[in-house]
Amino acid sequence: MNFEILDKSTITEARRGVLTTAHGILQTPFFMPIATKGAVKTLSSVDMEKLNAQILLSNTYHLYLRPGMKVIESYKGLHNFMNWQKPILTDSGGYQVFSLSKMRKISEEGVEFQSHIDGSKHLLTPELSMRIQQILGSDIVMAFDECTPPNYDETLLDLSIMRTIRWANRCKEYFEKNLSLSNNINALLFGINQGGIDEERRKMHAIELKKIDFDGYAIGGLSVGEPFQDACRIVDVLNKVLPEDKPRYFMGGAKPHELVAYVKRGVDMLDCVIPTRNARHGLMYRFLHDDLNRDDFYETIHVTNEKFSKDQSLLLQKRGVIKTVFDEELERYSLGYIRHLFSVNEMLAYRLVTLINIRFYLELMQRIREGITNKSL
Amino acid sequence: MNFEILDKSTITEARRGVLTTAHGILQTPFFMPIATKGAVKTLSSVDMEKLNAQILLSNTYHLYLRPGMKVIESYKGLHNFMNWQKPILTDSGGYQVFSLSKMRKISEEGVEFQSHIDGSKHLLTPELSMRIQQILGSDIVMAFDECTPPNYDETLLDLSIMRTIRWANRCKEYFEKNLSLSNNINALLFGINQGGIDEERRKMHAIELKKIDFDGYAIGGLSVGEPFQDACRIVDVLNKVLPEDKPRYFMGGAKPHELVAYVKRGVDMLDCVIPTRNARHGLMYRFLHDDLNRDDFYETIHVTNEKFSKDQSLLLQKRGVIKTVFDEELERYSLGYIRHLFSVNEMLAYRLVTLINIRFYLELMQRIREGITNKSL
Repeated sequence: MNFEILDKSTITEARRGVLTTAHGILQTPFFMPIATKGAVKTLSSVDMEKLNAQILLSNTYHLYLRPGMKVIESYKGLHNFMNWQKPILTDSGGYQVFSLSKMRKISEEGVEFQSHIDGSKHLLTPELSMRIQQILGSDIVMAFDECTPPNYDETLLDLSIMRTIRWANRCKEYFEKNLSLSNNINALLFGINQGGIDEERRKMHAIELKKIDFDGYAIGGLSVGEPFQDACRIVDVLNKVLPEDKPRYFMGGAKPHELVAYVKRGVDMLDCVIPTRNARHGLMYRFLHDDLNRDDFYETIHVTNEKFSKDQSLLLQKRGVIKTVFDEELERYSLGYIRHLFSVNEMLAYRLVTLINIRFYLELMQRIREGITNKSL
Repeated sequence: MNFEILDKSTITEARRGVLTTAHGILQTPFFMPIATKGAVKTLSSVDMEKLNAQILLSNTYHLYLRPGMKVIESYKGLHNFMNWQKPILTDSGGYQVFSLSKMRKISEEGVEFQSHIDGSKHLLTPELSMRIQQILGSDIVMAFDECTPPNYDETLLDLSIMRTIRWANRCKEYFEKNLSLSNNINALLFGINQGGIDEERRKMHAIELKKIDFDGYAIGGLSVGEPFQDACRIVDVLNKVLPEDKPRYFMGGAKPHELVAYVKRGVDMLDCVIPTRNARHGLMYRFLHDDLNRDDFYETIHVTNEKFSKDQSLLLQKRGVIKTVFDEELERYSLGYIRHLFSVNEMLAYRLVTLINIRFYLELMQRIREGITNKSL
């Protein structure tokens, strides 16, 4: 068993545990900062170690196109390439093929697409997605799926989710048969649940996935534009269907209070570009209250706003339940200075606010884990 | 006396000493990394401390326009604003007015110019330049001058350098009269020598400047397109004319071997955008030989070149005479990884190569200082 539940909330479905991977043991629930192209934007892997990030998420689609698998193979995997020896989860490439590529044509075989960089044509199949992720040496490999958009009609949705099941089977088969050729022979393989915001389809899909028997289950196709309440409802439903003894991963898109809501519904793993992408637009997160059950436990600060130009209050105002080596640095700079750096496009601004926001998300996860143990969440 | 010479080379005109400023004692010769807008591009002031940079150079023109003097005044100076409590040298704004602004009209009073940002009109005078630098709280204030271009005809050159003398007098007068209102009452004031590449004009100008009696003397108007040999010739001439007991600052533009050449001609202070600007274009410096008397003591590496895509050799290959807390980080990443980061425009690439290049320049200065003491330079 690579997943063990240590604590369960008595008031919600939240659970605290440990997930063992080839590159280390992860405390769940955890948040994965996104290193799309082999680096968390503006930060180095040494920085991520110093922030005590447990795991990074990298994108198959981007790394397949650049630097390409020959380069990654020459390094014997992504861990060596980016010099990060803690766990890495890679997505399947499916989501980016649908959201970024110029042209895409879905068939039973896979998805034909054109690179958003040079227009070159590629065919991404379940087997190729597995092969790429095995070359990357990922610790948690994601099955190849179609992330269905919220406005899909029922026929398209049914065709898609049935195909995703067939693809999931092909992934599992290829993954196991070729594990010995992988750069990470102890990798875990996760299946991805789809079904839009329809409860019955989600349940049926989850039951089919369970039959394939994955190391963990992801909830895909949410945070794609549907109301937050719908996402919560689907997670609630899946909480009852997905195997309790396997980790559950809510894919993509979670503001801080949403993240708390999903954990309360039994989610163990989360990722999101919000802390890093928003940082580069000058949006900072800061704790307001210790009680995570309040939706207003945090505030967002738009530091580019002119009202901060003479604001000498500090970037990091009070240390919470975690401590990082960056704290001293983050406690030195004022909002006025950061506001100036944004106004003159100094890259330092992006870096400092990225540090602040990732630190916030990691502290939030630590507070969540402690909250589960303390029975306050 | 705020300047003291400790060692003199027996084979060249190089000298080693200490310069005392309001924010600390500087080991000369020293190099000033450029924090144009209040930050060395991609790096924080904490990073600069960790690199053991002794002093930073900031630009009056840029800071005057953004964030503007009201903001800086509210922080009681640039040191607090950027949280850097070691020495700062500020330029006079003259060079940028001539190189960046849209329109400029020189009169005896000063230079009228239009902001390159919003087109707003400003009149920069010797008095305003002093006032701005006193608000910035600079440790080394530069007199307001015109940096003459290499193609100026003799009439324009004469008119310009005579005006620069009159402006220097006005700077000195304003500076002293208003020192009590400054954010740095122990600031030093440096005069700037001009005269193109004409030896007699340079000498005459230096003699006139000496009469005004500055705390140090800068050599301006070089590294503006003239042949390197001409710059060396002028520095040689000034070495005999400028007071020996005052620091000499070669302004702007020095590749590593040029920097050694100027030090050998009696220069104590240098600055240059090369290490930071080139870093952002993927050009790295690396030592090849310990003997700085060889012009090929270093190499430049264009890390964006495709030939590095699988190169697993490390960014920092061997530690030299200095040690920084970044060394471990810089020794971890390979050229192939950095090349990838450049190819996908990850800001991390700019940061890591900037660290490498500033580290190189600071190590070069340490080698130079040791070379003077060891009588090898």
